Amino acid sequence: MNRTGPMRDAPAPFGAGLFHGPPIRHLLGLEGLARESLIELLDSATNYRERLRSPRWVSDELRGLTVCNAFFEDSTRTRVSFELAEQRLGAMHTTFTTAGSSVSKGETLLDTLRVLAAMHVDLVVLRHRSPGASSFLAHHLEVGVINAGDGEHEHPTQGLLDLMTLSEAWAGRFEGRRIAIVGDVAHSRVARSALFGLTTLGASVTICGPPTLIPAEIEALGAKVAATIEEAMHGADAVMALRLQRERMEGGLLPSLGEYSRVWGINPERVALMKPEAVVLHPGPMNRGVEIAPEVADGHSSVIFRQVENGVAVRCAVLTRCAAALAEAS
Amino acid sequence: MNRTGPMRDAPAPFGAGLFHGPPIRHLLGLEGLARESLIELLDSATNYRERLRSPRWVSDELRGLTVCNAFFEDSTRTRVSFELAEQRLGAMHTTFTTAGSSVSKGETLLDTLRVLAAMHVDLVVLRHRSPGASSFLAHHLEVGVINAGDGEHEHPTQGLLDLMTLSEAWAGRFEGRRIAIVGDVAHSRVARSALFGLTTLGASVTICGPPTLIPAEIEALGAKVAATIEEAMHGADAVMALRLQRERMEGGLLPSLGEYSRVWGINPERVALMKPEAVVLHPGPMNRGVEIAPEVADGHSSVIFRQVENGVAVRCAVLTRCAAALAEAS
Amino acid sequence: MNRTGPMRDAPAPFGAGLFHGPPIRHLLGLEGLARESLIELLDSATNYRERLRSPRWVSDELRGLTVCNAFFEDSTRTRVSFELAEQRLGAMHTTFTTAGSSVSKGETLLDTLRVLAAMHVDLVVLRHRSPGASSFLAHHLEVGVINAGDGEHEHPTQGLLDLMTLSEAWAGRFEGRRIAIVGDVAHSRVARSALFGLTTLGASVTICGPPTLIPAEIEALGAKVAATIEEAMHGADAVMALRLQRERMEGGLLPSLGEYSRVWGINPERVALMKPEAVVLHPGPMNRGVEIAPEVADGHSSVIFRQVENGVAVRCAVLTRCAAALAEAS
Repeated sequence: MNRTGPMRDAPAPFGAGLFHGPPIRHLLGLEGLARESLIELLDSATNYRERLRSPRWVSDELRGLTVCNAFFEDSTRTRVSFELAEQRLGAMHTTFTTAGSSVSKGETLLDTLRVLAAMHVDLVVLRHRSPGASSFLAHHLEVGVINAGDGEHEHPTQGLLDLMTLSEAWAGRFEGRRIAIVGDVAHSRVARSALFGLTTLGASVTICGPPTLIPAEIEALGAKVAATIEEAMHGADAVMALRLQRERMEGGLLPSLGEYSRVWGINPERVALMKPEAVVLHPGPMNRGVEIAPEVADGHSSVIFRQVENGVAVRCAVLTRCAAALAEAS
Repeated sequence: MNRTGPMRDAPAPFGAGLFHGPPIRHLLGLEGLARESLIELLDSATNYRERLRSPRWVSDELRGLTVCNAFFEDSTRTRVSFELAEQRLGAMHTTFTTAGSSVSKGETLLDTLRVLAAMHVDLVVLRHRSPGASSFLAHHLEVGVINAGDGEHEHPTQGLLDLMTLSEAWAGRFEGRRIAIVGDVAHSRVARSALFGLTTLGASVTICGPPTLIPAEIEALGAKVAATIEEAMHGADAVMALRLQRERMEGGLLPSLGEYSRVWGINPERVALMKPEAVVLHPGPMNRGVEIAPEVADGHSSVIFRQVENGVAVRCAVLTRCAAALAEAS
Repeated sequence: MNRTGPMRDAPAPFGAGLFHGPPIRHLLGLEGLARESLIELLDSATNYRERLRSPRWVSDELRGLTVCNAFFEDSTRTRVSFELAEQRLGAMHTTFTTAGSSVSKGETLLDTLRVLAAMHVDLVVLRHRSPGASSFLAHHLEVGVINAGDGEHEHPTQGLLDLMTLSEAWAGRFEGRRIAIVGDVAHSRVARSALFGLTTLGASVTICGPPTLIPAEIEALGAKVAATIEEAMHGADAVMALRLQRERMEGGLLPSLGEYSRVWGINPERVALMKPEAVVLHPGPMNRGVEIAPEVADGHSSVIFRQVENGVAVRCAVLTRCAAALAEAS
């Protein structure tokens, strides 16, 4: 399968013939994921989105498969999105969050996950504060691992839903497109996953934000750094506002919320600097009035809730892709 | 369909022909709900109760439908009751409680719920501390909203299960019946929902409790206020003890627990003041020995656990009714 | 059915003919459970383990049955194990943990459980800090009760998975075998359940641990007490390390962690004292480096993760056994 043209908008056919790329046993990050695999996942997600829009759609694709949502950090949004995808596909699922887990009893992470593997869990959706936690587990366990956020490293299903949303806005063509990513890039796994995916697909990325929150090595990853938000957004095809972690403020890395909003907030005047059809993304949850103005969040350029919709579709695609790899391996 | 007689005891036939009244897209409260709709819901719930009593009964009525139980306040009892109803009817469901939700990250309630709608959730069961939260969301979102308690405003599925339990005790006839509601009426959404439903169906309500906890406007809603519990219960057909919120005590609105129990507690002597067939209700969880004596809670007049049983049946009826309205709308 | 020989390794046939022993309405403890019932449960669990090893195995055996996992104490491991068993068997299930339950609102345990029974829950899986909580409820309620740990009393599904793991290691023969149980026996429901089951099946048990943590009456239950871990493990067919509850340390019942590890920890030198084919068990979660050395936990004698795998199979067996008793009773 040789695909060098733009991504297709038309859904791919369902079923056994869907996956042609290399097997994806684990989804640990978008760094290094082949263009072909990315496109295959996005095509599959586009299919699922159509199905999710039909009333009462359910499937038996993952019937008999067991998924454990292991959330060592809180995340209602990502957890619910995965749980809904798992149910739509007919999987069994169980969820635990740190509160009440054995972790507080001194067990190692590896032992906790080995326990899940011993219980014949097929796939683990893992959120953990430590960068590399997912890779570590994928290396040591027989289960498939889907990274749902590992510290400041990656959040690949978020990256995929960002790509899917941009693909829709950009008619499937990433080459020649440019996106501005604004805010706390240094601590953002969302920004990192998006950056890896976007550069693989041929888009360019301009970063901006408070100098204390821009990592030194970011240009080595293929991004440009702009000095001001106006410079970053001028002529862009999209902007992604990152969530401001209020903890950073307390840590002295930032001045006040008002100051942040004035210098780095996405407001209508700044949106007007972009191309007319440019779109605004935010991974949520939003601090309205801080990193994004309410009239932008609710405005015609906003695709923020489209991102959420696409998130369930992306998780359906990733779950079935990893399940297919399990079946191929056994 | 013109129904002015007593409520039927015989179950209505199942299926497509069940609902004749106006569609119920959302269940936000019992205030203003038409008598015909109330009766239809109670008839449907009576059907479901019979089915729930058959061993291993399950249904596919809501297969493919997604329900999110969004509990911004704790409530094991109401949450479990809804979860069981959802499972019996074959719906997909996901639950979140405030602990660990994005709410603690500064997201607005509307944004949190918009996220659920974007994920193709069909129905949201919402508990929230703010009166009017459910109406606000129903106004802004495309999903169906079932109010599972909004502050001191309403708790309509609790009101319906109270009505269902009384209908059973009263052989389906509300006209000429009288119930005493005892306790902290001012802060009770349970009392408000019951009051609206009871007056719509033709029963009369007498309120009593510590003067600091009786709202000034209660008589405008159709209730009478009695000075003593003896006066309220004398000759009544039922009594509903409200749960004493211990927080009120600490707020200085009440004297001691012992004092409360002595003046406002439902004890056997006071039960004897009612009609011989009169019944005792309590929404739970009970403070035994405070608002209700243990021998009353466990006595032959108590229908407290019948209320709980009816609660699952009522939730089945409400979920299917709202689902039918969704289908009609689409 | 007269079985006096060793346990069978070959799976018993499935289905209606599986259960021949007396009905097991509740599983409250292994104390007093007949040898025949134990063997029947272990045979059934062995069957389930084979089925759990087949990819995507699911069953409808418990379809229409409702299980409530009522965890008044935290336990991710046991809860997830039950939830997975319930889903594999097609049961409906709902879970609550103490956080957010009505318990914190002053409701009695019996009332909380009566509420579940009124909601037509068929089986309650109960974990509670009070010894005897499960028996108390089984006595008062119509539902089937499965004890998932009641204070320092019993944890019978853990005991069964220990027996199942040992049966495998010992080729189904318990007579003439000896196991050492090491650690805080006084506070261990795991040790008590194992002890009851092992003595019923004909194995002998040697206990050792810090003198403050060895109960005076343990010899009356059929165990011997050894003065040192070396004496206990010498020539044994298995050793079970109990989890060290760090709270004990703070309570002054123990010296330091290092001291505990040095005197009572299972290390390779001590494992070498046992028979060559002897195995090492631990109920988890492990404090690596305290009660068990990492090289033992991961060594060839360790059957610790086999215990976890067997746990799901045991819970399948117990759930179906209790469900069968419900069906016989109705």
